[in-house]
Amino acid sequence: MKKRITIKDVAARAGVAYQTVSKVINGHVHVLPETETRIWAAARELSYRPNHNARNLRAQRSRMIGYSWSSSETEQPNHILHMFLTSMVSEAELAGYHLLPFPYRDGEDPVAGYRELIASGRVDAFVITSVNYDDPRANFLVEQNFPFVAFGRSSAHDNFPYVDVDGAAGLRMATEHLISRGHRRIAVLAWPETSRTGNDRLSGYLEAMRSASLEVMPDLIAHGDWKFEFGYAATERWLAWSPEQRPTAIVAVSDIMAVGAIHAAQSRGLTIGRDLAVMGFDDVPMAAYLWPPLTSVRQPIREAGRKCVEILVALLEGKTSAQRQVLLSPELIVRQSSARALAQE
Amino acid sequence: MKKRITIKDVAARAGVAYQTVSKVINGHVHVLPETETRIWAAARELSYRPNHNARNLRAQRSRMIGYSWSSSETEQPNHILHMFLTSMVSEAELAGYHLLPFPYRDGEDPVAGYRELIASGRVDAFVITSVNYDDPRANFLVEQNFPFVAFGRSSAHDNFPYVDVDGAAGLRMATEHLISRGHRRIAVLAWPETSRTGNDRLSGYLEAMRSASLEVMPDLIAHGDWKFEFGYAATERWLAWSPEQRPTAIVAVSDIMAVGAIHAAQSRGLTIGRDLAVMGFDDVPMAAYLWPPLTSVRQPIREAGRKCVEILVALLEGKTSAQRQVLLSPELIVRQSSARALAQE
Repeated sequence: MKKRITIKDVAARAGVAYQTVSKVINGHVHVLPETETRIWAAARELSYRPNHNARNLRAQRSRMIGYSWSSSETEQPNHILHMFLTSMVSEAELAGYHLLPFPYRDGEDPVAGYRELIASGRVDAFVITSVNYDDPRANFLVEQNFPFVAFGRSSAHDNFPYVDVDGAAGLRMATEHLISRGHRRIAVLAWPETSRTGNDRLSGYLEAMRSASLEVMPDLIAHGDWKFEFGYAATERWLAWSPEQRPTAIVAVSDIMAVGAIHAAQSRGLTIGRDLAVMGFDDVPMAAYLWPPLTSVRQPIREAGRKCVEILVALLEGKTSAQRQVLLSPELIVRQSSARALAQE
Repeated sequence: MKKRITIKDVAARAGVAYQTVSKVINGHVHVLPETETRIWAAARELSYRPNHNARNLRAQRSRMIGYSWSSSETEQPNHILHMFLTSMVSEAELAGYHLLPFPYRDGEDPVAGYRELIASGRVDAFVITSVNYDDPRANFLVEQNFPFVAFGRSSAHDNFPYVDVDGAAGLRMATEHLISRGHRRIAVLAWPETSRTGNDRLSGYLEAMRSASLEVMPDLIAHGDWKFEFGYAATERWLAWSPEQRPTAIVAVSDIMAVGAIHAAQSRGLTIGRDLAVMGFDDVPMAAYLWPPLTSVRQPIREAGRKCVEILVALLEGKTSAQRQVLLSPELIVRQSSARALAQE
């Protein structure tokens, strides 16, 4: 590897003191124009580039944004996270920052990685995601008074900066869509009752059912984990009911659970969109490619990444007047999986 | 934000000179045991942590590995990239490194981002992926003599370090599997002829066909881009042929193109696994969740990420004897989409 060109090399070539070069290059002093010209000419000739580590040391800034996600979430196809990451990498770079992804291993102390990165000065701020009630990472960062933005909220009254997608509005739209197509027995595949995001989305389903004066049947609300297998198993149970009792439509709080529901129905020989309507939430790119294509609620995920970076940069640059909490609206994407209920229903 | 505790604070509390603390903490000098004890006690009391930027400056090391991927690849559901990234983030951290992802925007100078990160000293090495013939990034990094590892190869005779999955072996396995199930008219969805990875995989198809003394029909080889839409359109064309001419099986060099093929067949009312066998390559997690579940060739993607980090760390730590080129074997995963050819075929 080539030896790095340092300020000393530039100083030697320009025939001036090392300190003079340093001050000129960092704009801290004015020298004779002739001297300055000579220094810049030497820097150019040697292809000198300032060393970022040195610059950051002086500024006590790393220009890095730490970001971690649960490794268990990568076992299921979660294209949303990849899009979110890609969006942030791109937006951060435009703002002069880089993302520093670090692993979060389930079962470990959830704040250990954060503590270490703060202590070592490697990052200026964090983005946290999959935020939940009384989130230990949010609590820790608030307590440390360390800059961060959350993708998601831990309650309806968070004081910290966040970007979230309005999940209640999303499920309300989804459920109203199914009701408008004649469905009455609408089941919902929800997340665990300990999930704030899951409960937020579920509340939209409940609102839509009540607004339409439809009875909410507890048996049609399944709380499970985040996985395909749960959507599959819950749907299997519903489809074993008599035709008069079983749901004619299922709305899931994520696409991957909707895919589980479709898999269960298709493996019983049912036709999605005719015998059963199914809807997801996220609108992952695969949703459009399934057969039949999946009706879903699209999360504006690139916008979410962009907003997270925007808020962080404003925080780091001391723009206290900037917006710190953003709630984005999801969008209903209607495809064939959510067809009209059969006439006899 | 709390003021960072510096060596000066530790020195003040320990009652010794700043330089002494620095030397002790960095292990560069031995002082009286009593003095050393006092320094460490002060460091502990103040919760002093060494500043990484300062350490890296001294060592001229950032302990960061640069990684970029084409943004166009994130528009299609490519869970493989997310798994590769996750694997590298995790493995790098175990080895004391972090990944620094940076955007690559299609149409830009492919080496600009690399040049800038080298010049600014922000990374010690790179991982490049989606490597192709005469790859400008590989050429640039070789010329700069800057450490990197490629996930993929640019030719059969690369001198630089790489980790690759044996694509020819993968397509050979896939094609042999279809032949063993009675298929003779086997079509292939391939990548552009300018894609080395695509040609490598295609060569496995050709070998398997020739080994089985089956005629390779140019009309059954479709070269297209990386997308769902191409798999869909090519399959539409094949399915418009007469039943005596149309392929009974399709093997794709990626799962997403196989999904396109399935979509085309299902929207014509064909039953996958009965009327048409379809196979993919990658074994993305979604493959198992489709209906019918997709037979595919699994890339050992976590292993690939692990090996990339292993090679880089060996390079950076000067272990010249370590293995620098790794070819991993893919694995055939048989599911329902690749059923036996109908008797009349």
